[in-house]
Amino acid sequence: MKRKVIEKLESIVGSDWVVVEEDQMQDYLIDETPEPVRPKPNPDVVVVKPEGVQEISEILKLANQESVPVVPRGGGTGLCGAAIPTKPSIILSLERLDDIIEIDRDNFTITCEAGVTLEKLLEELEETDDLFFPPHPGDEGAQVGGLVIENAGGARAVKYGVIRNFVKGLEIVLPTGEAMELGGKIIKNNTGLDLLDLVIGSEGILGIVTKVTFRLYPTPKERVSLVVPYGDRHSAVDTVPDMLREGLTPLSIEYMEEDLIERACEHLGEKWPVKTRGSAYLYIIVTGNDEEEAFSQCEKIGNICQEHGALDVVIADRRREQEKILNIRSNIYTALKPDSVDILDVTVPPAEIGKLMDEIEKIGEKYETYIPAYGHVADGNVHPHIMKEDGKTPPYMESMKEEIYSKTKELGGVITGEHGIGKTRIKNLPQAVGSKYIDLMKKIRKVFDPNNILNPGTVVEDD
Amino acid sequence: MKRKVIEKLESIVGSDWVVVEEDQMQDYLIDETPEPVRPKPNPDVVVVKPEGVQEISEILKLANQESVPVVPRGGGTGLCGAAIPTKPSIILSLERLDDIIEIDRDNFTITCEAGVTLEKLLEELEETDDLFFPPHPGDEGAQVGGLVIENAGGARAVKYGVIRNFVKGLEIVLPTGEAMELGGKIIKNNTGLDLLDLVIGSEGILGIVTKVTFRLYPTPKERVSLVVPYGDRHSAVDTVPDMLREGLTPLSIEYMEEDLIERACEHLGEKWPVKTRGSAYLYIIVTGNDEEEAFSQCEKIGNICQEHGALDVVIADRRREQEKILNIRSNIYTALKPDSVDILDVTVPPAEIGKLMDEIEKIGEKYETYIPAYGHVADGNVHPHIMKEDGKTPPYMESMKEEIYSKTKELGGVITGEHGIGKTRIKNLPQAVGSKYIDLMKKIRKVFDPNNILNPGTVVEDD
Repeated sequence: MKRKVIEKLESIVGSDWVVVEEDQMQDYLIDETPEPVRPKPNPDVVVVKPEGVQEISEILKLANQESVPVVPRGGGTGLCGAAIPTKPSIILSLERLDDIIEIDRDNFTITCEAGVTLEKLLEELEETDDLFFPPHPGDEGAQVGGLVIENAGGARAVKYGVIRNFVKGLEIVLPTGEAMELGGKIIKNNTGLDLLDLVIGSEGILGIVTKVTFRLYPTPKERVSLVVPYGDRHSAVDTVPDMLREGLTPLSIEYMEEDLIERACEHLGEKWPVKTRGSAYLYIIVTGNDEEEAFSQCEKIGNICQEHGALDVVIADRRREQEKILNIRSNIYTALKPDSVDILDVTVPPAEIGKLMDEIEKIGEKYETYIPAYGHVADGNVHPHIMKEDGKTPPYMESMKEEIYSKTKELGGVITGEHGIGKTRIKNLPQAVGSKYIDLMKKIRKVFDPNNILNPGTVVEDD
Repeated sequence: MKRKVIEKLESIVGSDWVVVEEDQMQDYLIDETPEPVRPKPNPDVVVVKPEGVQEISEILKLANQESVPVVPRGGGTGLCGAAIPTKPSIILSLERLDDIIEIDRDNFTITCEAGVTLEKLLEELEETDDLFFPPHPGDEGAQVGGLVIENAGGARAVKYGVIRNFVKGLEIVLPTGEAMELGGKIIKNNTGLDLLDLVIGSEGILGIVTKVTFRLYPTPKERVSLVVPYGDRHSAVDTVPDMLREGLTPLSIEYMEEDLIERACEHLGEKWPVKTRGSAYLYIIVTGNDEEEAFSQCEKIGNICQEHGALDVVIADRRREQEKILNIRSNIYTALKPDSVDILDVTVPPAEIGKLMDEIEKIGEKYETYIPAYGHVADGNVHPHIMKEDGKTPPYMESMKEEIYSKTKELGGVITGEHGIGKTRIKNLPQAVGSKYIDLMKKIRKVFDPNNILNPGTVVEDD
């Protein structure tokens, strides 16, 4: 990196907050994308840690003057390489913006700086006892700015929706350096074009999020888990629409198959606590305002599951048992990861998820490989893993991926439901959205970022 | 309108579907905006009624070639003049796109053409018995394309949110004539920048909506209304956050004052069916999956109201009584309208609504006039009416409006929560969002519409 740029950065944030030593910046160069598909980071970078909006604004102005790309950096928990610098860059870490500014009990909002981790936010809310932030996209090391910019999803979207539904207000710094407020603590807003939603999920190319106001919900007083084993996939997934149509809307409905449960148990050294075994499982978390409401829902859900051929309906109402099951479910991903070359995030209309999983299985058979898949069944969101062969990336990886994407599209779906395009899926975007869509995105990016400074090579190719 | 344009339009849609006679196009020139602030329609227009996407595409290409603006036309129920042609224009009516294409019971969606009215959509869904489209923004003559493009709100946003939350997929024709699909029947989608949300609420400047896929919900089996009279405004509005924090989320919570109820009753020749009178009322609609659930919620809500000093809690569970109350509430607007010069749509963080109403009252006192106000209290959305004086627009209208907007902003609010900017609020936009926001909107519009063809003079000023 040019000496001049480093000196100017030091004069903006102070030399303590500029990192140039290679050994101190390794953590800033990668994210959670599986190594075989992860973009190679460019080593010619400098890490800068501003304390607030004013400094961020000055850094962006400098970057425009010196034509140096800026890559915003949150918790580094992304899965599509969006935060990996692939050009000589300034890595702008939000870690010092870590204050929770306000919990507003009457307007049901929490406002915090972008660098606050999900863990910190959840801990802070736990103390209120009655205010709840429903989304839980996985890794609690994620920062709220990253949750917004990647529009994170997770298992709890069934009842409450993805992060987008919770973002009420943002403070951002535009690529050209101006700070701007979008939205606020308001529920309804038709004041001009919806730039707030345009920034949500924009993967850091339209501005740097510096402050977020999330909407909160009342904490459900009761939580019960159901584990429902089935003899086959379709009986399990076909239960879901019938359940929802009856007005039964759980917090989450996850789909898992026996072999993946075993793999996760082995990985953890745990024992699956449910006696009745099946080949496929629904794992349902029900919430209610009181015990009666929660159990009445469980009963109705149990009946519907049994009408669809469930082999058993197991209720876990003790906290320890619930946590054990949840932990096993969460570790399917971790157990598979070392042997995975890519984790897909395909999403179809929810009722098509069984068909999609059949198609994925067939594609696996064609290539003589096993494609483990599990997912958020009520959202139509599946995560097929492409596995290593003899410890290496199989030669058919790209063509197999394209076939999965193509089947997904045939079923009315999209290539990414919650992980994003980032840098790893950019080559699949023309197949997914077509050239006119890409053309509009490129031009919108140009409106916000005329010099192509912010996170280049993400979402859309550079011109 | 140039003869050449009319002829070409006739060749695209057939001469039966082109209207040039002045007496046959009067209904296409105005909307529901109160007459005193309504933009003056330009009489030099031609109305064209295409049958589908292909013809719409050709009309837009012609409009670009001939440099004639196109004003999309739905049900004409808008309140900010967005659909009024203020330049010589082609008025493109969506009325022939009136097919309901599909109700998908397993994916919980309804897909229809843009010209389907809300009334038709609701009738069609009533036949399913178990599928429900929650939003009800008022006039059922509204067309679904218009609901989307204005991001309509209404009373039922408390539980389910505004129209934006229901739009899963759109087919649009861009101002340059290309058709494009956005979203689908999917719940989660992070495939590129969120153009779907950008088009929702764009008031017809970024594209013409031709097809909409809405998400549906299960029909709540039970519905009960509560009318709660209070002795004063603040006791009433302060009940709301406490109720919501307890996990009690009604379908709607409306706020009304005694004088407006009387005015609406008089207008309808009805009698208010609630014995205990107060100066302020909450009107709450509770839904539940069964009678027990609904009444248990009512009981809890009633207790919280009484803790806040409610004079009574009146439960209306018979359908006729419920409809009578709803009809009176809905006709506050109709009763006031003939004497109104403008209907505002200010929105603040929900807990600030009492303060906002006090401030509006003070502004009224300053100008020695009465500003009736009522609204969607849980959304912080108030509709103050500016009233005629001696049958005419009062001279202080603009300055009074600016003062209301300025107080709204001080309280963290916006100038329009559900009605939109359209043409009537465009002059208040700089005060509301600032110049950088307007600059971004203008440039985004240019990306979609390089020749400024679609609905010019709406949302943002022409350059």
